[in-house]
Amino acid sequence: MIYLLLVFTPITIVLEFIHADHVVIFVIASIALIPLAKLIGDSTEHLSLHYGPTLGSLLNVTFGNAAEIIIAIVAINAGLIDLVKASITGAILGNILLIFGLSIMAGGFRYKEQFFSQENIGLQSSMLFLAIIGLAVPTILASTLNVDGANASIENQLNVQIISDILAFLLLAVYIGGIIFTFFTHKHIFYTQAHTENHKKGQEKNIDATAWTKKKSFLYLGLSMAGVIAVSEILVGSVESTAEQFGFGELFVGAIIIGIVGNAAEHSSAIVLARKGKIELSIGIAAGSGTQIALFVVPILVLAGIVMNQQFSLVFTPFELVTIFLAAIILNLIARDGKSNWFEGLMLTFVYIIIAIGFFFIK
Amino acid sequence: MIYLLLVFTPITIVLEFIHADHVVIFVIASIALIPLAKLIGDSTEHLSLHYGPTLGSLLNVTFGNAAEIIIAIVAINAGLIDLVKASITGAILGNILLIFGLSIMAGGFRYKEQFFSQENIGLQSSMLFLAIIGLAVPTILASTLNVDGANASIENQLNVQIISDILAFLLLAVYIGGIIFTFFTHKHIFYTQAHTENHKKGQEKNIDATAWTKKKSFLYLGLSMAGVIAVSEILVGSVESTAEQFGFGELFVGAIIIGIVGNAAEHSSAIVLARKGKIELSIGIAAGSGTQIALFVVPILVLAGIVMNQQFSLVFTPFELVTIFLAAIILNLIARDGKSNWFEGLMLTFVYIIIAIGFFFIK
Amino acid sequence: MIYLLLVFTPITIVLEFIHADHVVIFVIASIALIPLAKLIGDSTEHLSLHYGPTLGSLLNVTFGNAAEIIIAIVAINAGLIDLVKASITGAILGNILLIFGLSIMAGGFRYKEQFFSQENIGLQSSMLFLAIIGLAVPTILASTLNVDGANASIENQLNVQIISDILAFLLLAVYIGGIIFTFFTHKHIFYTQAHTENHKKGQEKNIDATAWTKKKSFLYLGLSMAGVIAVSEILVGSVESTAEQFGFGELFVGAIIIGIVGNAAEHSSAIVLARKGKIELSIGIAAGSGTQIALFVVPILVLAGIVMNQQFSLVFTPFELVTIFLAAIILNLIARDGKSNWFEGLMLTFVYIIIAIGFFFIK
Repeated sequence: MIYLLLVFTPITIVLEFIHADHVVIFVIASIALIPLAKLIGDSTEHLSLHYGPTLGSLLNVTFGNAAEIIIAIVAINAGLIDLVKASITGAILGNILLIFGLSIMAGGFRYKEQFFSQENIGLQSSMLFLAIIGLAVPTILASTLNVDGANASIENQLNVQIISDILAFLLLAVYIGGIIFTFFTHKHIFYTQAHTENHKKGQEKNIDATAWTKKKSFLYLGLSMAGVIAVSEILVGSVESTAEQFGFGELFVGAIIIGIVGNAAEHSSAIVLARKGKIELSIGIAAGSGTQIALFVVPILVLAGIVMNQQFSLVFTPFELVTIFLAAIILNLIARDGKSNWFEGLMLTFVYIIIAIGFFFIK
Repeated sequence: MIYLLLVFTPITIVLEFIHADHVVIFVIASIALIPLAKLIGDSTEHLSLHYGPTLGSLLNVTFGNAAEIIIAIVAINAGLIDLVKASITGAILGNILLIFGLSIMAGGFRYKEQFFSQENIGLQSSMLFLAIIGLAVPTILASTLNVDGANASIENQLNVQIISDILAFLLLAVYIGGIIFTFFTHKHIFYTQAHTENHKKGQEKNIDATAWTKKKSFLYLGLSMAGVIAVSEILVGSVESTAEQFGFGELFVGAIIIGIVGNAAEHSSAIVLARKGKIELSIGIAAGSGTQIALFVVPILVLAGIVMNQQFSLVFTPFELVTIFLAAIILNLIARDGKSNWFEGLMLTFVYIIIAIGFFFIK
Repeated sequence: MIYLLLVFTPITIVLEFIHADHVVIFVIASIALIPLAKLIGDSTEHLSLHYGPTLGSLLNVTFGNAAEIIIAIVAINAGLIDLVKASITGAILGNILLIFGLSIMAGGFRYKEQFFSQENIGLQSSMLFLAIIGLAVPTILASTLNVDGANASIENQLNVQIISDILAFLLLAVYIGGIIFTFFTHKHIFYTQAHTENHKKGQEKNIDATAWTKKKSFLYLGLSMAGVIAVSEILVGSVESTAEQFGFGELFVGAIIIGIVGNAAEHSSAIVLARKGKIELSIGIAAGSGTQIALFVVPILVLAGIVMNQQFSLVFTPFELVTIFLAAIILNLIARDGKSNWFEGLMLTFVYIIIAIGFFFIK
C-alpha cells in the first residue's frame, strides 16, 4: 500500500530537473522518502530471514536506520549541521513519544490493558539515558566555554570537537556492548519472544510464498538506498528556501518534518502491531529505535563528520537536550510498570505535540 | 473547629473599611481564607453525596480548587501575575511535598509501614510530569527568545502568549482525558476504594444525620465563594505593601503564604486520614490536588487571562520550574513502591522546607 | 597488600623536606593517601567488632569518611574551596558510578544475574536525591543573584552563605533521621543481612585470629588519621603548581584525582565482594558512601567552614550539579529492579568515564 508512494521518487527527480518550485520539491521529496525508508527496512528484514535469528536480528538492527543515516550524511555534507541535529532529536522524540504513544493508544482502544516485559523497556531506558548523558556533557561544556558566542576561541571549539569525537567512540562501544548483551550473553531474556515472532513471521511468509529471495532482497536494498541518496540530495537542496518561505525555523523542519519522514514513519508498523495485541514487539520497535538513533546513529555521524571534514559535534541546543531528557523520563514513568492503556498512549502523544509546538515557535 | 476561624471574614471586611494597617489586614485576611476554602470544599463534598458516586466525584474534583482559582483570578485582575504563578507553584509543592510528607509522617508514627496502590500514584506522577513539560516548553522558549530582557521584541512576547494559550487547551484536554480514564473507561481500577469510602462516608452522615441537604450545601457553597471573593480582593490589595514592609519577595509571599492558605490548608484533612490508617485516601488527596492544580487550575487561569485581557502565560521562573520538577521526581522515588514510613514523610517535608527557604532568599 | 603502599607516607614527608619537584610530591602523596584512607576504614571496622552490631555500624558509618573529611578540611583551610567541592563531586560520582559499576561488572562476569534488596537502594536513592535538592537550591539562588559576577553585591554573597549554613543543618538532621530509621525504628528491614554479614565477618576473624584488639584498632586509627593529616597538608601544598604544570583544571584534579584517592579507592573492596557474590554488601558500600558524602560530609564541611572562617557554601558549578543529578537518575534506573548484570555495570562505568572526560575539558 505504502509502496504506491514510490511513484514520488521519479516525480521528485523530474521536478528537480525542470527546476520546479522549491516548496513543491520539498513536499514531494519528503513524501518520496517515506516508502523508500520503508523499503530499506523491509528488504533488510526479508534478507535477515535467510540468515538465522541472531545474524538476522543483527542485520535488522544495523540497517534499521540506514535511511536516517544516509539523509543525515547528505545534509552534513551540505553543511546543514543544525538541521541534522534537529532531525536526530526529532527522530528520537518521534519514536519514543509519537510512535510509542500512538501504538499504546491504538492497542488501548481495543484492549483494556496490555502487558509487556519490563526487562526490555528497562534496558532501553538505561541505554537512552546513557546516550543523553553523552550529549549533555559536551553541551554543558560548550555553553560553559561560550563556544557559540561572538568571541569564542578556536581552541575551545577544537576542544568541544575533540570531546565529541572521544565520546562518539565511547557511545559506540556501549552500543556494541548492548548487542553482545542482548544477542549473546543474555539472549535468553530477550530471545524467546523475538525468536518466536521472527519464526512465525518466517512461517507466514513461507506459507504465503511472499518471502523475498536473497537476490531480490539485495536488489531492493540497493535500489532503495540509491533512491534515498538521490531524493535526500534533492530534499536537502530545497530545504533552506522552503523553510524561509514558510517562516519555519531550521529546528522545526529538522525535528518535526525530517525526523518523522526519515525515521519515524518507517516504524509506523509498530502501531499496527499494537492494534493486533503484539504490544511487546511494538514497544521493542519504538523504544529500540529511539535508543539506536541516540547510541548508534549519532556516533556514526560524528565519525562521518571527521571523514567528511565537517565539524559534527555532540553539542545540541538546550531545547533539544531538555526535551529529549524530559521525554526519556516520562517514557520511563509510563512504561516501567509493564502495563499500558489508552490514556498512557494519549499522554505520550500529547507530550510529543507539546514539544512539536515548542519547535515550531523556536526560530 | 476550623470553622471558628470564619469569624475572621467579617473582621477582615471591617479592618478594610477602617483602613487598618496593611500588614494586619494581610495576616487577618490570610487566616480568614483558610476556613472559607475549607467550607467550599466541604459544601461541595456534601453536595456530591446527593448525586451518586460518579457525578459526585466529578463535582468534588471540579470544585475542589475553587478557592485557589478565585484568589488567582482576583490577583490576575489586579495585575499580580508573578504572585499568582508563585502561588500556583506553592500550591503544587505544598500538596505533593508538605501535605503528602506530613500525612506519611503522621501515619508512619503510628504504623510501622503503610501500603497503598501503585496505580493511582503512578497515574498522578505521569500527569504531573506531563504538566511540567507543558510549563517547561514555554519557559525555555521565553528564555531562548529573551522575552524578559530589556530589548524583548513585542513579537516574541506575543509568540510566548500564543504558545501558552495553545498549550493551555492541550493540558485541559489531557485533564479531561484523565477524568474519562479514571471515572469511566478504567474506573474498576480506581473505583472500589473511592466508592467504598464515599459510601461509608455517606452512611455515617446519614446515621449521624449530619449530611447537609442539597439546599444547605448550595447556600454554603455560594456564601463561602462570595466570602473568598471579598477576602481575596482585600488580601490582594494589601499584599504588595506587606511584602515591602517585611522585605519578603513576591515569590515567597505567593509560593509559601498564599500557596498554603489558598490550597494546601484545605487538604490538611489528608494528614488526619493518614493517622487513621487511610493512607490511600490521604495520598489521593495530596498527589491528586497537586496534579489538578498543574493540569486544571493553570490552564483555566491562562484562559481567564485571555478573557480578562491580562497576559497570563505558562512561563515560570527557572527556580519555580526546577523545584516543581525536582519535587515531582522525589515524590516518585519515594512513593512508587506503594509503601510508606515515617522517614519517607520526613524527607518530603524537609524537601519542602529546603525549597521554602530558597523562596525566602530569592527576592 | 595495599598496605605495602604505606611506605609512600614517609617518602612523601621526606620529599617535602628536601623540596622535591611539586609534581613528584603530588603523585607520591596521592598514592600515599590510598592505603591511609583504607587503614582508617579497616581500623574503624575492627573497632566496631568490639561494640555489637548497632553501635559498631554507627562507628563504621561515622568514621567511614574520616579521610575524605580530613583532606577537605586541610584544603579548605588553605582556601582551596573549589577544589574541595570538586573532590566531593568526584567522591560521590566515584562511588555511585565507578565503584558501583565496577562491582556490578565484576560480579556480572561471574554470575549471569545477581539479586539484591530494593529497599536499601530505594532509601539511598531518595536520600541522595534530597541532598541534591539541598545543593540545587543555593546553586540556582547564586546564579539568579549573580553571585559570581563582577558586580556581585556583598549582601547577596552573605545570603548565599546564610542559606548554605541553614541547609547544612537541615541535611544533617535528615542524615540523623536516616540513622534512626535504619539502625533503630526499622532495623528489621536492613538488619538481617547486615547483621549476618557482620557476624560472619566477626566469626571469620575470630577463627583466623586476625581481629585486631581494641587497643590496636585505636592505635592504628590514630596513626592513620595523623598520616592523612600530614600527607594532606603536603598534597594540598603541591596541588596548584601541579595542576598548572600539566594544564589540568582545578575541577579535574579535585573531582577525578582527589575524589578517587581520598574516598573511592577506600571502597574498592566493594568490587571484591561483588566478585564473591555478595552484591548486597557491595551495593551497600557504593551507594551508601555516595549518600553519606552528600548528606553527612558536605554539611560537616559547611559547619567546619564557619568555624574556620572560610566561606564554604553549598553552591556548586552547574556541571558538578548536573552530573551528580544525572548520575543519581541513571543509578536509580539501573538498580531499582533489584537485579544486576555485567552490561549494567559497564553502562555505569562508561557514564563515569564520560563525565570524567567532561571534567578534563572544563578548565
